[in-house]
Amino acid sequence: MVDIATRVHNHNWKIDPIVRSLIDTDFYKLLMCQSIFRNKPETTVTFSLINRTAEVRLADLIDEGELREQLDHVRSLSLSRGESTWLRGNMFYGKRQMFRPDFMEWFEGLRLPPYHLEKRDGQYELTFEGSWPEVMLWEIPALAVLMELRSRAVLKGMGKFELQILYARAMTRLWEKIERLKSLENLRIADFGTRRRHSFLWQDWCVQAMQEGLGAKFTGTSNCRIAMKRDIEAIGTNAHELPMVYSALAEDDEALAQAPYQVLADWHEEHDGNLRIILPDTYGTEGFLRKAPDWLTTWTGIRIDSGDPAAGAETAIRWWTSRGEDPAQKLVIFSDGLDVEKIEELHRQFRGRVKVSFGWGTMLTNDFRGLAGDRLAPFSLVCKAVSANGRPTVKLSDNPNKAMGPKDEIARYKRVFGVGEQAAMDVTV
Amino acid sequence: MVDIATRVHNHNWKIDPIVRSLIDTDFYKLLMCQSIFRNKPETTVTFSLINRTAEVRLADLIDEGELREQLDHVRSLSLSRGESTWLRGNMFYGKRQMFRPDFMEWFEGLRLPPYHLEKRDGQYELTFEGSWPEVMLWEIPALAVLMELRSRAVLKGMGKFELQILYARAMTRLWEKIERLKSLENLRIADFGTRRRHSFLWQDWCVQAMQEGLGAKFTGTSNCRIAMKRDIEAIGTNAHELPMVYSALAEDDEALAQAPYQVLADWHEEHDGNLRIILPDTYGTEGFLRKAPDWLTTWTGIRIDSGDPAAGAETAIRWWTSRGEDPAQKLVIFSDGLDVEKIEELHRQFRGRVKVSFGWGTMLTNDFRGLAGDRLAPFSLVCKAVSANGRPTVKLSDNPNKAMGPKDEIARYKRVFGVGEQAAMDVTV
Repeated sequence: MVDIATRVHNHNWKIDPIVRSLIDTDFYKLLMCQSIFRNKPETTVTFSLINRTAEVRLADLIDEGELREQLDHVRSLSLSRGESTWLRGNMFYGKRQMFRPDFMEWFEGLRLPPYHLEKRDGQYELTFEGSWPEVMLWEIPALAVLMELRSRAVLKGMGKFELQILYARAMTRLWEKIERLKSLENLRIADFGTRRRHSFLWQDWCVQAMQEGLGAKFTGTSNCRIAMKRDIEAIGTNAHELPMVYSALAEDDEALAQAPYQVLADWHEEHDGNLRIILPDTYGTEGFLRKAPDWLTTWTGIRIDSGDPAAGAETAIRWWTSRGEDPAQKLVIFSDGLDVEKIEELHRQFRGRVKVSFGWGTMLTNDFRGLAGDRLAPFSLVCKAVSANGRPTVKLSDNPNKAMGPKDEIARYKRVFGVGEQAAMDVTV
Repeated sequence: MVDIATRVHNHNWKIDPIVRSLIDTDFYKLLMCQSIFRNKPETTVTFSLINRTAEVRLADLIDEGELREQLDHVRSLSLSRGESTWLRGNMFYGKRQMFRPDFMEWFEGLRLPPYHLEKRDGQYELTFEGSWPEVMLWEIPALAVLMELRSRAVLKGMGKFELQILYARAMTRLWEKIERLKSLENLRIADFGTRRRHSFLWQDWCVQAMQEGLGAKFTGTSNCRIAMKRDIEAIGTNAHELPMVYSALAEDDEALAQAPYQVLADWHEEHDGNLRIILPDTYGTEGFLRKAPDWLTTWTGIRIDSGDPAAGAETAIRWWTSRGEDPAQKLVIFSDGLDVEKIEELHRQFRGRVKVSFGWGTMLTNDFRGLAGDRLAPFSLVCKAVSANGRPTVKLSDNPNKAMGPKDEIARYKRVFGVGEQAAMDVTV
């Protein structure tokens, strides 16, 4: 039986909204937002879309009117009662609420601030300017909207059965990956793929496939909306934007050198010692760890997000050992450039030596390579803080191809953080 | 929105019926039924299920109660008004109704006769006895029920995502076949897969995929229900059961030798010279054509249904040429053991020399080889007339592995029809 009411309702949609909830975002954005809301609420920042894959000409593929409709729809969203309840119910080990009442009250009243959109050279210049805790929440929905509009643009010309086969192939591909991962003993892996997903429904399918295929080896998703909907754990800690903005705000070189540690000191205090994962690569992992204060060695673990991941993990292990910590008690989270081969390799190399966990992103939620030619292949789109209180931000990372910021500032940061030669690696996703 | 009424309705089903319509059957069964109804209505026949793939132990896989429920459901079916209208509206080139009013009136009142079911050695013995025009209509629903109950038995243990991936793989496989077939110029291909289908819904999907993928190269389906539902042409002519029963009824060797030609004389008269496709292999193609009366050479074409198909087509071409007919004006329908490679090969070999058409069966609607291990692989199940008016039927075909009947009768038929050595070929489907 056709449900006539549903059918008529569907006809009444003005658009098919891509982002339908303010918590269709990464959990760590909310954790960071709360920290910023408390510690740096007055900071003014600019976030900007950056397409590192120039050959994907987004402004040629995506209609500007459709893009504006989607972004306007995001601005119309506010936290629902159920979403608020779910956020308030998230606890640290059942002991303390993750989100404080003052933050929740602020979040419940929030609408996302305006955006600025222009076309240039076949690309969209999309920027967001304003108060840091508000603007930073644009990152994930902006990426999700652009990624999915690009998918829709490619899918538009395809027939019903072509579409069915396209998804049949993508599903089969992911399932074969899951079947390989299933055999890895003590695997712990989470979905980190919101920002690069092919579409919302596809990410939701991928999460369900991971649930059924991997059981307890699948530890959760970074996407709050899907975590809530599918009754699984929301996963996340912190990201580069914290040290990038803290560093941009530093008044001199000395303050700059201390900024990344100040981030983690605030973080520690904010969360009463929970969520203690170090992200050391913003200005070079080696230097960060060498100069790190002793209290950081007691943290739970490290997330490796750029450079050669095995080398990064070995560096972390050496550091813990040199500071008298037992690496076997520490957690290493790999979250950059992962696919099944790499996961198997890292799992083999590090299991038993440290606690290993994987945050699987693009190749989980957007592996459409070779399907529809390469017109649906993932590409490298980010949305980053480019300035804070009028000063440019800088990111070096462990891969010079991921470096961001004005040339002279990059040089200054390299000097201050003692970053020497770095091995360049392709940034594909 | 969940359609609550639909959901509640679904809960009220006692069974999920496999065959839901008397015209969920092959078109040629109805054409033959009409011919039998007119020419041999008093004949008593026995039809019997024969599983040529002994290692598929159907009685171990399929619950007897479920099988009986499905067969009882088939017995509860009668022709609906819309089905009757559709049948009455089928015309020969817009000139004459295919189905005569007296036949339609009889068919509208029909319920299928009782069945007899027993278990033996891990197999079901399923037989139907009674008036030929009634009993013969059991063939396709009986096969469809057993094929689909076997599929269901295997699928029962699979999870939701396993199932989705299973069908994703099967869909991708068929679509890749269709993409290959698409490039064959002037291809004409129809679905002949009802009797060996994985399930009704799967056959229906396969037909839609052929429609979208092949366009005008897809000429129709043998399944009346799907032809009606999908607004495409129903395809079919005649089958071995006519010469088998006519031959069993023959009083002596002389009458036996003439029986296969008598079938076609009746057929010709029945259809006013339409649907004139010769099926020559029941007792050996070579002998049948050699001794054929001249009026048969003017028929439209030949269907090749056993033996080496290329050899069969070459035999037909030689025969037409020797009788002064132009093979280029004749139709050759290949309908045995087809998959893409074979279709490509035959298309290459015969296009331009004759009009070529393909009736694609098992490997269209049931290619689940290697999916779910081989537990869903197609197998060779048939339902045949084994006796008529108390006398055993015999089939020789162009492949001794497809021969049927008592040993002494096979010897007698070989003598009467002058069949010598035959090349044995595996019967897989």
